Amino acid sequence: MTPPTITKLCQDLPPTDSNEAFEALLERPGLKLERIVSRGHATPPGEWYDQEQDEWVAVLAGAARLRVEHHGSYELGPGDSLLLPARCRHRVDWTDPDQPTVWLALHVWP
Amino acid sequence: MTPPTITKLCQDLPPTDSNEAFEALLERPGLKLERIVSRGHATPPGEWYDQEQDEWVAVLAGAARLRVEHHGSYELGPGDSLLLPARCRHRVDWTDPDQPTVWLALHVWP
Repeated sequence: MTPPTITKLCQDLPPTDSNEAFEALLERPGLKLERIVSRGHATPPGEWYDQEQDEWVAVLAGAARLRVEHHGSYELGPGDSLLLPARCRHRVDWTDPDQPTVWLALHVWP
Repeated sequence: MTPPTITKLCQDLPPTDSNEAFEALLERPGLKLERIVSRGHATPPGEWYDQEQDEWVAVLAGAARLRVEHHGSYELGPGDSLLLPARCRHRVDWTDPDQPTVWLALHVWP
């Protein structure tokens, strides 16, 4: 067996440009765990995520504001997590432009 | 739809006694995401975890030392994650007795 290696989720961050950086940490049939790094990124105006899969998200570092359709805004900081069920329309209204925001996102398909 | 609610993973920690505290955050067929809180706990001497499922772990707060059979010790602090494949025997040698250690563990069955 290859020795397990430590991944430092809040260090060695990938560069970002006009897009957030997405990296798969674990992929198996029906699920994907990924790290997302945002630097001031937001979902384009008027756009929503409307997914067929459940998504659990957590913020590890930084700060973000998530909007859930019909349910308002959620301020997220380190250690905050949220379950977004399939078809729960949501968008990222804001992430801190002055520091990286590091997310974990676990997508689970039905 | 019930409004999503924020779970503060590193606050509102459950009590622990002689055992670590395990709480499921998300359960679906073939997977379980859980939060584990340790306060100085370790795997009993001579015992190993030997699991049929893959396990991805991350430390969110605190400090821990994990031992992987044949591969030595891993010092884990906030933001450190590790994939432990099925049948990779491992044990927790130490967690910090002076502060809670908060883990995320994602178990994925084949």
